[in-house]
Amino acid sequence: MDLKEYLRNRQGKIEATLKDLLPAKDTYPEILHEAMGYSVFAGGKRLRPILCLAACEAVKGSLEEALPVACALEIIHTYSLIHDDLPAMDNDVLRRGKPTNHIVFGEANAILAGDALLTLAFQIIGEAGLKSAHKYETYLEIIKDISIAVGSLGMIGGQVVDILSENQEIDLATLKYIHQSKTGALIKTSLKSGALLGAGSKEQVRQLVLYGEYLGLAFQITDDLLDVLGNAEKLGKPVGSDNKNQKSTYPNLFGIEKTKELAEEAVNNAVRALQDFGSEGDVLRSLAEYLLIREN
Amino acid sequence: MDLKEYLRNRQGKIEATLKDLLPAKDTYPEILHEAMGYSVFAGGKRLRPILCLAACEAVKGSLEEALPVACALEIIHTYSLIHDDLPAMDNDVLRRGKPTNHIVFGEANAILAGDALLTLAFQIIGEAGLKSAHKYETYLEIIKDISIAVGSLGMIGGQVVDILSENQEIDLATLKYIHQSKTGALIKTSLKSGALLGAGSKEQVRQLVLYGEYLGLAFQITDDLLDVLGNAEKLGKPVGSDNKNQKSTYPNLFGIEKTKELAEEAVNNAVRALQDFGSEGDVLRSLAEYLLIREN
Repeated sequence: MDLKEYLRNRQGKIEATLKDLLPAKDTYPEILHEAMGYSVFAGGKRLRPILCLAACEAVKGSLEEALPVACALEIIHTYSLIHDDLPAMDNDVLRRGKPTNHIVFGEANAILAGDALLTLAFQIIGEAGLKSAHKYETYLEIIKDISIAVGSLGMIGGQVVDILSENQEIDLATLKYIHQSKTGALIKTSLKSGALLGAGSKEQVRQLVLYGEYLGLAFQITDDLLDVLGNAEKLGKPVGSDNKNQKSTYPNLFGIEKTKELAEEAVNNAVRALQDFGSEGDVLRSLAEYLLIREN
Repeated sequence: MDLKEYLRNRQGKIEATLKDLLPAKDTYPEILHEAMGYSVFAGGKRLRPILCLAACEAVKGSLEEALPVACALEIIHTYSLIHDDLPAMDNDVLRRGKPTNHIVFGEANAILAGDALLTLAFQIIGEAGLKSAHKYETYLEIIKDISIAVGSLGMIGGQVVDILSENQEIDLATLKYIHQSKTGALIKTSLKSGALLGAGSKEQVRQLVLYGEYLGLAFQITDDLLDVLGNAEKLGKPVGSDNKNQKSTYPNLFGIEKTKELAEEAVNNAVRALQDFGSEGDVLRSLAEYLLIREN
């Protein structure tokens, strides 16, 4: 299969659905809706919605039905980036090569645009659920699962510990907690949501969640690597910006060679989790391997 | 009926349910869960959950069943207060007589505690929905309705326009937009949620929503009045703090006497909206009248 072509196709569908789901830029109050759209359409890879759609298809569910939830996951990811970049948090001025939201719209609007995106995500899932009469319970499960994944015991908890760990030496357990919570939980729930929407069996859901755990780990480790090895152009943010804030990373703890090995091991484990899937698991397998070679 | 006794009883139930629903303070990461609890248990009046419960009872629904959603509404209200108080927004240092969240926990934790509370609210509603097998659709409707009410076209939109209007002369239409969006929308959806949970008829839901619109208006007008006439001790924040930021208010636009008349008119309209309700509407009637005389 041609993964790049596949990704372009999925990104196109996600882009179009996001355009439908976000209020138009000229909706009152305009500055808020501009700020929301600015970050949602800032050129992300759309990894989380792609994983959601791929999980749905892996259990032979309908791609179209999973699109709103997939986009809601991307919208949640976007809100988290806007808030992470704030002066009170990572204080980043560039994201994906563009000025961050608060640089363009001011801090108050950036905070509120993030709040509005998080709220919109739940609205989208609620509305999608109401449209699919036979799956009300599934949508409530998804709302529960996503909110736990991105709440105080998940993504937000990870961000809090990440901030607490700045300029501190942290141990591997803490680094793992940060990664699993801050990045891993949303990736994992993306796969679970897709699997649930596609009406996968309990065992299929379990395997896709396991795949998601290893994929999230691989993703974070390669992100750490890119931050050391990459260049600012590819990353869209200053190289070493994590180092700037003295954040603990895999390369800091293990060195570059061992970190590469750990990334490879995580990808292999992700692929292994899909062993019961036939060709319908190929996209997810390719995605995991693609992660390892992206940009380096 | 003894309204004060009624309110104490309801506040007690809400307090106990909130304690059950919020993660314990010593849950990791502790500072986040402390920050969440600090503002949720800072002594609010619990108006929104009380309205939700009262609307549910007005259509003869079960109080117990409405408690989780009622508490989710209070949690959303709390998140909005934490974010409104931030340095980038109203920059308030006192709320209900206590230091605001960012003063105690720092700006980053205050932003994240707000985010976590908003997320928790949707988790609570999703979980409550999953527990009541015959009402999945109702819970999805409530999620949709609440997220619209507190999203970019509702509460958050109102906050954006409020901030834009600082140090500006605004017209009555803009003042009304701010009130209806920033305060009114959440109050209205509190009544609607309760009515839906109690399985009220379409007409009952419509009337309770109308009551909510007038009540929200009355509430905001008297809030403006209290800011001029009240004292810091009663309000728990510096008197004239809205004036400090040169915010447009009803007293600014109409003078104090006319503002009092407008508040009275809104309360009368709220009570009139309940004319089809028998004694089961008494609590809501008393609440509307109580609003007018609170602290002045």
